[in-house]
Amino acid sequence: MGYIIGFDVGGTNIVCGLLDGKGRLVGKAKRPTEAANGFGHVVGLMAACVDGLLAEHGIDRGQVDAVGAGIPGFVDPLRGVVRFAGNLSWTDRPLAEELAGRTGLPVYIDNDVRMYIYGEAMAGAGRGFGVVLGVTVGTGLAAALVDRGQLYRGGGFMAGEIGHIRMDGIRYECGCGMSGCLETVVSATGIARLAREKAASGTPTALTRFYGLEHLDRLTAADVSKAYDLGDAAAIEVMDEVGRLLGRGLSYATTLFSPDVIIVGGGAANAGERLLAPMRTELQSLVHPMYWKRLAIRQAELLDDAGVIGSALYAGRRAAGEAEG
Amino acid sequence: MGYIIGFDVGGTNIVCGLLDGKGRLVGKAKRPTEAANGFGHVVGLMAACVDGLLAEHGIDRGQVDAVGAGIPGFVDPLRGVVRFAGNLSWTDRPLAEELAGRTGLPVYIDNDVRMYIYGEAMAGAGRGFGVVLGVTVGTGLAAALVDRGQLYRGGGFMAGEIGHIRMDGIRYECGCGMSGCLETVVSATGIARLAREKAASGTPTALTRFYGLEHLDRLTAADVSKAYDLGDAAAIEVMDEVGRLLGRGLSYATTLFSPDVIIVGGGAANAGERLLAPMRTELQSLVHPMYWKRLAIRQAELLDDAGVIGSALYAGRRAAGEAEG
Repeated sequence: MGYIIGFDVGGTNIVCGLLDGKGRLVGKAKRPTEAANGFGHVVGLMAACVDGLLAEHGIDRGQVDAVGAGIPGFVDPLRGVVRFAGNLSWTDRPLAEELAGRTGLPVYIDNDVRMYIYGEAMAGAGRGFGVVLGVTVGTGLAAALVDRGQLYRGGGFMAGEIGHIRMDGIRYECGCGMSGCLETVVSATGIARLAREKAASGTPTALTRFYGLEHLDRLTAADVSKAYDLGDAAAIEVMDEVGRLLGRGLSYATTLFSPDVIIVGGGAANAGERLLAPMRTELQSLVHPMYWKRLAIRQAELLDDAGVIGSALYAGRRAAGEAEG
Repeated sequence: MGYIIGFDVGGTNIVCGLLDGKGRLVGKAKRPTEAANGFGHVVGLMAACVDGLLAEHGIDRGQVDAVGAGIPGFVDPLRGVVRFAGNLSWTDRPLAEELAGRTGLPVYIDNDVRMYIYGEAMAGAGRGFGVVLGVTVGTGLAAALVDRGQLYRGGGFMAGEIGHIRMDGIRYECGCGMSGCLETVVSATGIARLAREKAASGTPTALTRFYGLEHLDRLTAADVSKAYDLGDAAAIEVMDEVGRLLGRGLSYATTLFSPDVIIVGGGAANAGERLLAPMRTELQSLVHPMYWKRLAIRQAELLDDAGVIGSALYAGRRAAGEAEG
């Protein structure tokens, strides 16, 4: 196996990474996405990232097997087309073909959550497990499933949208146009929202001290963790509620997918046990013991590198004909 | 392709069927399971079924590619072992090996719901669709997923237990040891239970006329359909409630699996539109339009033959190395 290159494309930054023949991340670079300059410009930046990595490491283009990329949005991984990526203002963009044209290398793409979870499944917290269900709790909430090395994508490549399961008792409007979606609560955004509401309701809480009552909109999920660690009752209630709802959503996914391991990643996973403890309790109380007793639960291990590693490994396997389209 | 033979093994009857090289069901036989006589006896009956089909159709054993069987219980399809089948009183029984020994033919097994849905996916209502989600609404409620011809089974082969998703607002105890499971309401048993409760509550309803107030325990899901067709308000409420809850459960499955088609089968599916209409309404109201607009919903087509056809086709594909274990 030769070198492989992976991209994690976000609305703000593009991160690219170089993996050697043993799958080790040996180089990494980051640059602003500059999406406002258009699709062609971003593809040019990506091609320059590839050139930069090759030059920096003294690697010939012929030693690279493939390039992968995770894109935040709806992707057709078979045609290599980004169907819609709101953050990038892309609609129906043939990214794989364009980037292959500019780099002379085979390019494979999928959405960023799948590439992140694929990385965790193959090289992170999911190593050694057969059926890996991963969730990313970040700005939103999404899931991906890797069944013995193969991504499960569903019809229209739309599987895993756990964040848009609608829950009794949730009333918030969701960015997707519906209301009551799980991700309106179970996400960094949702944690901050609940915290803001608690603080505004007059409950005595340390949450009001961060930015004052007049700037509650600045509260973040990280602030809630800080208040939690001070023993603040309101912050603890927020994390408990979010954790329990995550556990409820995962109970549906567990009963339907029967994963061997659930990996929790994404920015809000930094809350760690504050979120995972109530999640675990709720999940155990809702699923049949036959699932619970064989289920492992892990925090993501590769953190910021999961997307780059995942997209590189995925591209490597696609190029080798080992992963399905 | 040669002939293939499929079994649908139930607690009461064993049905076996013969498919010709074009996958057409050309012969079928049925006999009592006689499970009380033990595992060896049942295997003997199954081997006799094979012999009977071959003799009746003048087919040589060498013309048969494989034998398949769907078993009501937990099955390890890779080892060919029935891990637990309550109706048959089997625990850790090496059915594939035993039946192969008695018939001289390769044998492949899985649970009865997967074989039923596999039949519908490959030769029934799911033909031409990529990702097929099937549910059987019978004594219980279960689901199976066929992704472009491959069964998705999950860790421990326990995927698809939609009947054991626990729902807010359901309080009934379930045979599985938990309470609030979807199948306590969404099943033939559940329909009869709700009908019994309505009738016993004093609501004026045609449901009391079938067997009198003193024999409400005899009410069946089919009786509820009959009362529904008389315009009975209580019966309509029961079907509406069951249909809506089925729709809610399917909304979770749709958002997670993203099927191209949902097939509704099993005995209670005979209720047809009485159940499917409220199911559809609820499902549409709960899933994102991106799922709904591409989702087909079908009633099962093969009815009683789905299990026999599915297990035969599955065995044929396993023997040809086309289906994964």
